[in-house]
Amino acid sequence: MAHKIRLKKVTIVGERVLYDDLIDLLKRHHVSGWTAKNVIGEGSRGVHASDWEGSNTQIYTLVTEQIADAIMDEIAALYFENWSVVVYSQDVEVLRGNKYQAQ
Amino acid sequence: MAHKIRLKKVTIVGERVLYDDLIDLLKRHHVSGWTAKNVIGEGSRGVHASDWEGSNTQIYTLVTEQIADAIMDEIAALYFENWSVVVYSQDVEVLRGNKYQAQ
Amino acid sequence: MAHKIRLKKVTIVGERVLYDDLIDLLKRHHVSGWTAKNVIGEGSRGVHASDWEGSNTQIYTLVTEQIADAIMDEIAALYFENWSVVVYSQDVEVLRGNKYQAQ
Repeated sequence: MAHKIRLKKVTIVGERVLYDDLIDLLKRHHVSGWTAKNVIGEGSRGVHASDWEGSNTQIYTLVTEQIADAIMDEIAALYFENWSVVVYSQDVEVLRGNKYQAQ
Repeated sequence: MAHKIRLKKVTIVGERVLYDDLIDLLKRHHVSGWTAKNVIGEGSRGVHASDWEGSNTQIYTLVTEQIADAIMDEIAALYFENWSVVVYSQDVEVLRGNKYQAQ
Repeated sequence: MAHKIRLKKVTIVGERVLYDDLIDLLKRHHVSGWTAKNVIGEGSRGVHASDWEGSNTQIYTLVTEQIADAIMDEIAALYFENWSVVVYSQDVEVLRGNKYQAQ
């Protein structure tokens, strides 16, 4: 039977060159699923995309609050000083909870 | 006068081949609006996109909680056994509430 | 030290021809960062994309509740009568709060 569980949706937006590193970071936290897309954006460092292909990558994953905090802390430690990375979390209710157990 | 109403944002992520079926499912629940984009993703079944075009589709709609639950239940019943479909809901405050009345 | 602050994520979906106007609107509210992507969608006015390039634009920004309300009110005033624009807000917890101070 399907049931809903409360998780955190953690979204990371950053330069596309960081994509592989960010996925590796998620895997270090035993994240088994993620969704990504190219986006364009402009932030406080003046990052700007020149076309609609998108120069930034946006990745999100659905995880427990504990894992969300660990991911966010590591992103801050690794990227906030030198990169235009933004990370935020939201409450979500996810069906098929058995796919998102804490590791 | 514009006003905000609380609704549920229901997001569905699945293989792109399911796109038409998923839109039909939404229409069966009298959903009058939706937004979709191509995404790439990797999930617990090892689904993986080979390029940045995106092999998955992500669809969301803004609906009442009752319709959200009905949509999620039907997705679970139809897709969870054989497909890599993820569905989750979030609280949203929507301006122009008159477009999102319960059907 | 990184810390989380509560902000509003304001998402705007509308015809792609409005993109520049919507960015200008955000800048009038002193928004320093935003993320955008092309999407397809169908709404109560029958807007429909003919291909996967996406005929709509989706833009979001992370701002204080006060700025969120001001943005939403201006969008309602400028676009709701004649355009298929949808705008909604969500609670988010954002790391690197120093980038999202009220202006």
